[in-house]
Amino acid sequence: MAVNVALLGAGRIGKVHAKAVGAAAGATLVAVADAFPEAAETLAAAYGARVSTIDEIAAAGDVDAVIICTPTDTHADLIEKFARAGKAIFCEKPVDLSLDRVKACLKTVEDLGATLMLGFNRRFDPHFRAVRAAIDEGRIGDVEMVQITSRDPGAPPPSYITSSGGIFRDMTIHDFDMARFLLGDEVTTVYATASVLVDPEIGKLGDYDSAMVVLTTASGKQCSISNSRRATYGYDQRIEVHGSKGVVSAENQRPVSIEVATEAGYTRPPLHDFFMTRYTEAYAAEITAFVEAIETGTAPSPSGEDGLKALALAEAALKSIAERRAVGMDEV
Amino acid sequence: MAVNVALLGAGRIGKVHAKAVGAAAGATLVAVADAFPEAAETLAAAYGARVSTIDEIAAAGDVDAVIICTPTDTHADLIEKFARAGKAIFCEKPVDLSLDRVKACLKTVEDLGATLMLGFNRRFDPHFRAVRAAIDEGRIGDVEMVQITSRDPGAPPPSYITSSGGIFRDMTIHDFDMARFLLGDEVTTVYATASVLVDPEIGKLGDYDSAMVVLTTASGKQCSISNSRRATYGYDQRIEVHGSKGVVSAENQRPVSIEVATEAGYTRPPLHDFFMTRYTEAYAAEITAFVEAIETGTAPSPSGEDGLKALALAEAALKSIAERRAVGMDEV
Amino acid sequence: MAVNVALLGAGRIGKVHAKAVGAAAGATLVAVADAFPEAAETLAAAYGARVSTIDEIAAAGDVDAVIICTPTDTHADLIEKFARAGKAIFCEKPVDLSLDRVKACLKTVEDLGATLMLGFNRRFDPHFRAVRAAIDEGRIGDVEMVQITSRDPGAPPPSYITSSGGIFRDMTIHDFDMARFLLGDEVTTVYATASVLVDPEIGKLGDYDSAMVVLTTASGKQCSISNSRRATYGYDQRIEVHGSKGVVSAENQRPVSIEVATEAGYTRPPLHDFFMTRYTEAYAAEITAFVEAIETGTAPSPSGEDGLKALALAEAALKSIAERRAVGMDEV
Amino acid sequence: MAVNVALLGAGRIGKVHAKAVGAAAGATLVAVADAFPEAAETLAAAYGARVSTIDEIAAAGDVDAVIICTPTDTHADLIEKFARAGKAIFCEKPVDLSLDRVKACLKTVEDLGATLMLGFNRRFDPHFRAVRAAIDEGRIGDVEMVQITSRDPGAPPPSYITSSGGIFRDMTIHDFDMARFLLGDEVTTVYATASVLVDPEIGKLGDYDSAMVVLTTASGKQCSISNSRRATYGYDQRIEVHGSKGVVSAENQRPVSIEVATEAGYTRPPLHDFFMTRYTEAYAAEITAFVEAIETGTAPSPSGEDGLKALALAEAALKSIAERRAVGMDEV
Repeated sequence: MAVNVALLGAGRIGKVHAKAVGAAAGATLVAVADAFPEAAETLAAAYGARVSTIDEIAAAGDVDAVIICTPTDTHADLIEKFARAGKAIFCEKPVDLSLDRVKACLKTVEDLGATLMLGFNRRFDPHFRAVRAAIDEGRIGDVEMVQITSRDPGAPPPSYITSSGGIFRDMTIHDFDMARFLLGDEVTTVYATASVLVDPEIGKLGDYDSAMVVLTTASGKQCSISNSRRATYGYDQRIEVHGSKGVVSAENQRPVSIEVATEAGYTRPPLHDFFMTRYTEAYAAEITAFVEAIETGTAPSPSGEDGLKALALAEAALKSIAERRAVGMDEV
Repeated sequence: MAVNVALLGAGRIGKVHAKAVGAAAGATLVAVADAFPEAAETLAAAYGARVSTIDEIAAAGDVDAVIICTPTDTHADLIEKFARAGKAIFCEKPVDLSLDRVKACLKTVEDLGATLMLGFNRRFDPHFRAVRAAIDEGRIGDVEMVQITSRDPGAPPPSYITSSGGIFRDMTIHDFDMARFLLGDEVTTVYATASVLVDPEIGKLGDYDSAMVVLTTASGKQCSISNSRRATYGYDQRIEVHGSKGVVSAENQRPVSIEVATEAGYTRPPLHDFFMTRYTEAYAAEITAFVEAIETGTAPSPSGEDGLKALALAEAALKSIAERRAVGMDEV
Repeated sequence: MAVNVALLGAGRIGKVHAKAVGAAAGATLVAVADAFPEAAETLAAAYGARVSTIDEIAAAGDVDAVIICTPTDTHADLIEKFARAGKAIFCEKPVDLSLDRVKACLKTVEDLGATLMLGFNRRFDPHFRAVRAAIDEGRIGDVEMVQITSRDPGAPPPSYITSSGGIFRDMTIHDFDMARFLLGDEVTTVYATASVLVDPEIGKLGDYDSAMVVLTTASGKQCSISNSRRATYGYDQRIEVHGSKGVVSAENQRPVSIEVATEAGYTRPPLHDFFMTRYTEAYAAEITAFVEAIETGTAPSPSGEDGLKALALAEAALKSIAERRAVGMDEV
Repeated sequence: MAVNVALLGAGRIGKVHAKAVGAAAGATLVAVADAFPEAAETLAAAYGARVSTIDEIAAAGDVDAVIICTPTDTHADLIEKFARAGKAIFCEKPVDLSLDRVKACLKTVEDLGATLMLGFNRRFDPHFRAVRAAIDEGRIGDVEMVQITSRDPGAPPPSYITSSGGIFRDMTIHDFDMARFLLGDEVTTVYATASVLVDPEIGKLGDYDSAMVVLTTASGKQCSISNSRRATYGYDQRIEVHGSKGVVSAENQRPVSIEVATEAGYTRPPLHDFFMTRYTEAYAAEITAFVEAIETGTAPSPSGEDGLKALALAEAALKSIAERRAVGMDEV
């Protein structure tokens, strides 16, 4: 059985997913919708799909699943619409910027018994998966401390900041999900501190560009997250997990692995400078997992609940900054 | 203009090239031929191509180019046949195991003004290309010494050895081409030594499994090659170029980049264990370059002449072993 | 002029300093005092020094300087005694476990115009100094975030824990000093979380073995510290400083730099497993700096004030844990 | 029992050995001789030794051992003189530039039952020793291929070249000894090629500055050596041993291990730029081994025979270049 997929949103990330569908065994892209018809047409043509409206897709008998890559403020409504239409749903994070709206949406999904997968692509990065596998195999014993360093190559434009929900809901949310993926225990308290060191414009918009977060679990496990909106040397994405028997870490990735040694020393090239090239394999593997979940009728992971919990951690971080104290997850 | 490509040989490497054609912008796989009809059918179906005979392909008006992945002893005849048929030709190395046959074949290609590209995939590896780019940019000054370490994960079966032409024509030939690619000067003398340390069966067949080669150029540049048919830790493929201003090297590649530290030390996973996974990007880039050469009407590189010169180096290496001396390239 | 040095305390760290004095150009070890006469005699004999009492050393006309390596609870009294005796003083950290006692002691030192240097050896590690030099040279622009990972190979015995003042005053204090050394700004707030994950005995004594700390400065710079009393792979001591133009980091150190690759992967040996072997060069450089400060009449660094500030950070960390909030340095 | 040592030659390497004697438990430097009295006096004063003539040292009842650091052309005569005087002898390589003279000298040493150790310092480098230990422990199975990369930071002055015996007797000789140390089998054939790429002056003196050598053993093991008199990035000293079960390698050493990442990439500092700083630990360990051999009455290693064999390999390399062929060790 081939899974027929429709794509909602033909922008930057939509193209990445269209390519992943094209490459996935057992999946076919059949329809593309976008507010800009030309974008939809170009992408549809490249994969032999048709251009449709969102309503047409919801009503289409030959569409099994949808991939939602539209703006964030449309996610929750679309999830509910397609849950009602009986389609399996893959949605880019976040479901919504409001915790209450997310909860309501997930309630609808649950009541309808719909299939929903959240787009936390990093869980599918082969290096991060290998870190998790090393933990699962017991190579480092019991997990004690997680350290996540996550820095963007450069700050997004102010227009993006405005609709992003701020650094914690937009950027750190990936690290919150990774922390949960690696800690193996739910987080109980959050402490965060943040400042504006990169771009004063970001501060004027009420957001931050530099942040550190410490998470703790009921059993005393700890996790630190270090974020910056700027890393001159590329997209800095490292994780390290310290356990009772050792430590496992994932190194940064670069497009080419050469080294030049001269009088000035030994130099290797900068890292990937874009999340799409850094996470190429992860995006493909995530869509493959979505298709497999549909084919096998199993619940996809990460789930809507994972999306909710990561967002709740972002809320707690903001509350922590406002009150300069550790915030319990039972408070948000 | 789309370049229509036919594939001759639907085996292991044929599949790799079919996938590369499928992914290449501007190229379409239209026909597949193979002595085993089922192999051809499976591959043709996957890419929407037809199954054809070699003669049909030679006569087909809609085929612009052929990719030859058949057994080595058919290469020269097929090159000549398709040169006469006016098709652009990509052929896996080597053109033939006999220097004279290669020369005759290339003469035919030249006389017909045909387009021929040889499959030295490593020239298209992004890491090795970056090494060459560093040289071209003058970062290490004048090239003085090249060191190539090239070890297979494991020895091939005796049946393969028999038809391979031996380690120098089969395995070292890639390193000979890489040496020429990096030295920037033609090799004038060859010294080789070889032994059987991995598998006595290889020795019984008159071949070697462990070899070292030293090449020199007229201007005194030097190149060492170290080959083994076995590397327990994966596919070991390193190059280093030492120049008047510094050194540039390409590191080994592994599927996942994690490190686990325990009482036993710091451990990273083994390397890629197969040439196809190691050189995935190189195979795709090589076919892209072939297609671009056809589209732009430029001479593809590496050329048939490059194939001839690498094979001549293999001949010289064998003569060097037999005579325990440095052999001049004017002797072969 | 040679500086004549007396050593107070011939234990483990005393031996390290005796060797450093022996190797330092311009310094001579003339006297050793220890509560255990045999320890003093052995060490004195090895360096041609005499065994003395503390009072004799204070009164000795040929002693220019003392190195205090006695138990922590004697430090403040000894500093005051030798400040009055007109000797230059090098004292192992901390001056005292009580902030008030430290302040009183430093007041005495200041009033007497005495020379006092604190034993924060890590400031003299060549790798950490190179990190600081890279910052000072402007290679990473303005410092924004410091990340310190500092893990002991194994937990100390309960008897040590009891008199240590706890993990923050005993272990993290080095990291607090390093944070100040690298941030280039005074810390204004401290958040800490800690738990007992390594050894329940440590918890029974009211101490912790696993901790994370976040420091912030008035200008919004941030620093994270990650501590564990156990690292199976050796003495884990890393620092990383992220700035507006890049990042600089110091790698871990191991006794031998080899790598073995087998079917199981690529393995490098564990790190140094003891602070004395890890910081051999730092201990020697620290004593050399002390001697040079005496010879040139300049104020040694790190100073008593540096010791006080690091201890205040430890106090703030403890208060933060008790109150689950960020503590301002103006509160301790 | 303390071993009393006299030093012959107070130059650059003499100072290194004097310091090593000073640091070695159980050894005392008692006398120093040098053609330049001032050099001898300075060094003697620093270690509380007396200045003596060579004849006085030979006759001195309180001298157990001598360390010969005089010019090469005096080595053989001094070895014979002190063998007759009943002193244990440590001599810097080489014994002599003439194979016949070395043989005669070693015959005298043997006839007198004297103790002679040769100064191949690299055998005592902790990293290279760890490589050898990994082999001895069977971690890489049977040794098959050794690769030695050995490049000086810069070419020596012409005056040094003239008396050095040329690159093979002066520089490669260390690599020849390391090859023997690691191969575990005697070399049977030598092929060498060399050119002048660094400094034309070296060529005018009849020497080379760039060389590659391939050694083979009777059982088919192979070893490559790559030498250059210039490496802009520091003192490049790498070894790699490939065996049936894996590979072990020793990495280069640098004074400080930091990394700076910026837009331009990731940069680590250059390597050590001088053999004395690179091999500090090796020089100390070599003298310690000499003293221990004297104390325990065991034969020191490396022996005079090791010195002879390394020199014979240099002779074979020169013959190989002259005759452009592999030279059997039974030919020199």
